[in-house]
Amino acid sequence: MKALAGFRELYPEEALRRGVILSTWRRVARCYGFEEYDGPTLEPLDLYSKKNAGGEEILGQLYRFEDGGGRQVALRPEMTPSLARMAASKEKHYRKPMKWFAIGNFFRFERQQRGRLREFIQLNCDILGDAGPDADAELVAFAIDAMRGFGLRSEDFVVRLSHRKAWTSFLEAHGLSGKQIPGVLQIVDKLERDAPEVLEEKLTAVGLSLSQVKDFIKGPPPPELHHVIGNLTSRGLGDFFEVDLSIVRGLAYYTGLVFEVFDRSKSLRALAGGGRYDALVSGLSDGAVDLPAVGFGMGDVVLGNFISEVPHAEALMQTRLAEARALDVYVIVADEARRPEALRVIQSLRDAGLTTDAGLSPSKVGKQFQAAELAHAKFAVVVGSEWPSLKVKRMATRAESEVPYGELAEWLKNPQA
Amino acid sequence: MKALAGFRELYPEEALRRGVILSTWRRVARCYGFEEYDGPTLEPLDLYSKKNAGGEEILGQLYRFEDGGGRQVALRPEMTPSLARMAASKEKHYRKPMKWFAIGNFFRFERQQRGRLREFIQLNCDILGDAGPDADAELVAFAIDAMRGFGLRSEDFVVRLSHRKAWTSFLEAHGLSGKQIPGVLQIVDKLERDAPEVLEEKLTAVGLSLSQVKDFIKGPPPPELHHVIGNLTSRGLGDFFEVDLSIVRGLAYYTGLVFEVFDRSKSLRALAGGGRYDALVSGLSDGAVDLPAVGFGMGDVVLGNFISEVPHAEALMQTRLAEARALDVYVIVADEARRPEALRVIQSLRDAGLTTDAGLSPSKVGKQFQAAELAHAKFAVVVGSEWPSLKVKRMATRAESEVPYGELAEWLKNPQA
Repeated sequence: MKALAGFRELYPEEALRRGVILSTWRRVARCYGFEEYDGPTLEPLDLYSKKNAGGEEILGQLYRFEDGGGRQVALRPEMTPSLARMAASKEKHYRKPMKWFAIGNFFRFERQQRGRLREFIQLNCDILGDAGPDADAELVAFAIDAMRGFGLRSEDFVVRLSHRKAWTSFLEAHGLSGKQIPGVLQIVDKLERDAPEVLEEKLTAVGLSLSQVKDFIKGPPPPELHHVIGNLTSRGLGDFFEVDLSIVRGLAYYTGLVFEVFDRSKSLRALAGGGRYDALVSGLSDGAVDLPAVGFGMGDVVLGNFISEVPHAEALMQTRLAEARALDVYVIVADEARRPEALRVIQSLRDAGLTTDAGLSPSKVGKQFQAAELAHAKFAVVVGSEWPSLKVKRMATRAESEVPYGELAEWLKNPQA
Repeated sequence: MKALAGFRELYPEEALRRGVILSTWRRVARCYGFEEYDGPTLEPLDLYSKKNAGGEEILGQLYRFEDGGGRQVALRPEMTPSLARMAASKEKHYRKPMKWFAIGNFFRFERQQRGRLREFIQLNCDILGDAGPDADAELVAFAIDAMRGFGLRSEDFVVRLSHRKAWTSFLEAHGLSGKQIPGVLQIVDKLERDAPEVLEEKLTAVGLSLSQVKDFIKGPPPPELHHVIGNLTSRGLGDFFEVDLSIVRGLAYYTGLVFEVFDRSKSLRALAGGGRYDALVSGLSDGAVDLPAVGFGMGDVVLGNFISEVPHAEALMQTRLAEARALDVYVIVADEARRPEALRVIQSLRDAGLTTDAGLSPSKVGKQFQAAELAHAKFAVVVGSEWPSLKVKRMATRAESEVPYGELAEWLKNPQA
C-alpha cells in the first residue's frame, strides 16, 4: 500500500530539513514583529466560490466533497480567504496594522510536475488595516529577509515588483473599460507561456496589440511603485528587487502592488508571491468591514529545491541540520546489573534538559559506543564499576573524565576542557 | 460566513498558546532522542478499512470522499496506520529501535462535546523494532515527561497502565476462545459508561459475570506489567503511574501494554493514550515486514484545557507566553524627515537578529511610545535630532542612553545597566 500521488511521506532526514525551513520562517516573522495565527484545514466550499475570493483556476483545483452532515466543504487551497473572514469578524479587537503570519498545509488537485505537490506547506504573511505603500514595502522587505534567512543572496534571487493600478491606468488610457480589465490581466499573466500569435489574437480582440503591451512592460517604473522603491532602498535592500510589470498574479482579488520572488536563473517556478487585496475583506463580510490588506505566500517545496541547488545556502542548511541532530549525551550500560542506576542517570540528565539517549536492551559496550557515534552524541557517559561515579568520554576528542553522579548534569552543561 | 462547527480559528493569543504546547512537545521528544517524521494528511481509504488497522468506531468517524481522479480517500483520523506503512517500506534503512515522533492535524467526524473537535493536533510517539518491556517503559516515561514539561505534577495527573495479554490470559482461563476476546474487550472498554445491567447481560452471554471481571481488575498487578513497573520506578517516576486493568483501549490493533493518561480528578477525557501493536506493521505489509512497535498519542485540546485549570501549570504557561511575546526593540520616528534613517536602523537591528517593530505611518511620539508598550518592547530606540546617534530607552525603568548608530545592535544585545 502506498501514499497518494502528490502527497509526501517525510522520513526523519526530510522532516528535519522541513523543520529548519519552518523554524527559519518563524524566526524571521518574529524578527519583524508578526504574530502567528491559524485557521481550519477544512472550510465551507462557499468561502472559495464566493465572488472575489480566489479565481477560476483555484476553483478547478479544489479537493471538495459533502461531509457527513450534508455540508459542501473543501480542503483549503490557500490561506487568504480564511484570514479575511477571521480578520473581518474580530478586527475591532486588534490595533492596526495587524501583522499576522501563518504556517499551514494546503491542498490543490493539480497535474503533477516538479515543484508541485497536492499537499504542501506555505508561509502566509499579511499586514491588515494599513492601505499605505510603507506597509507594502514592509511586507516585501519581510519576503526578502525570509529568503536571506536561508543564506540566499541578491545574486541568487530577486523580487519582481508590479502594480495592478499601473495596469489599470495603462489599459484605461487605451480605452478599455473596468469590466474588460480582469480579462486582459489573464492574458498578460500567460505572456511567457502562450505563443505570440495567440497573444496577439487575444489582445487584438480587445483593441490592443502585443507590442503596446510589451512597450508598457519595458517602460520606466510607474509612479505607483515609486514610494515602495524608495522605502526598500532606504533599508539597503536595493539589490534584492526589480520592477517587472509582466507580473500580474493569477488570483482575482489583487488591487494594488503585486510581486513574485524568483531565482535569478528563472529555472524554477516562483518561490513566493503576493500583493495588495484591499477589497477582499469587505467582499467576504458583505461590506460590513473595510480592511485594506497586503500579503504574500511562500511554499516549502520550490524553496526546498532551490536551497539544495545553491551551494552556500545548502552549506548553511547542513550546519543547521547538524545542530538540530546533535545529541548531548549517550548513556552506556557497561554492567547490566547497573541498569537501574543507568535509568536514574538518564532520567536526571533529561530532567536537566540535556538531550539523552541510550540503548533499550543489553548489548556489548563497543556496540553501544558505535550507537553513540551514529547518534551524533557529544558525550558518552558510562555506567559501570565506577558507580556512584561515572566515566565521561568526549566523543570528538576521546578525552575521559570521572564525574560523581550528583555533579554529572552540571558538569555536562559546563564541561571542563 | 463562519468556520465549520468543530474547527478552530486560532487568533494570535490562542495560536501562541498552541505554539508553546507544540514547542514543549518537540523539546521533550528531542530530550528523549526521538526523531520527527510526518505523513500525508489525506490517505487512501483502504489504509483505515484494512483489517487490524483502527476499529469500527474510527471507520464511522472518517471524513471520506472520492477525489477528482476517482480514488477513495480519507482525511487521517490518527497517525499509526501511516506510520506503520512508512516504517514497513523503509525499515531496512534505519537502526533499531526507531524512536520517531510526529506532530500533525487529524480529523474525526464526531458529535461535538467538550474536549472534542473535528480537527485537532496530536503528538504521536512510537518506538519501532524493539519488542521488549524496556521499550514500553521508555515510551511511558516519555508520556510522563511530556506532561511534566508543562509543569504538571504527580498530584495533577496519573498514567494508568494495563496489558492486553493479562486480559487474554484471564479470559482464556475462563474458557473464552481467541475469537471471542476482542468482543469482550469492547464490553470492558465501556465499563464506566454502560449501566451494570447492560454489562451483566453482555458478559453473561459469553459465560462471564460482572463480578468476575471486577475482581480481576481489582486484583494484584499482573506479571506482564512487573518489568515496566520496575523500570519506571528505577527512573524515579513511581509517583506518576498506577496499574488499572479497566484500561483496554478502543482500537483493535493493540497486542500488549496499553495505557492512558488522566487528570487525577478524572473530570476530563484521557489526556493521552497508547500501547503496543506488534502485528500492525506485519498486517499492513501483508506479512512482508515484522516490526514490533509501541506508541502513544496526546492531543492538544484536552491538554490545553487541563493546563488552564491547574494553577501552577497555567502560571508556567503565562511565563512562556510572555517570553514568546516579548519584542526586543520598538523604533520610534521622532522626526518624519528621518524615516529613511529609521528604516536603515530597523533593517540593521533585524539583520542582527533582534526582534524589531515600528509604526508604518507617521504618528505622534507619545502614540509611538504607547505602541512600544503594547508590543511588550524591552527597548525603544528614538530616531530624531540625535542622529547619527540614537536615544535608547529601557521600557521597564525608563532609563535613557545615547548610542551611536554603528554601535546600536551590539549595545542592545549587551545593554549597559
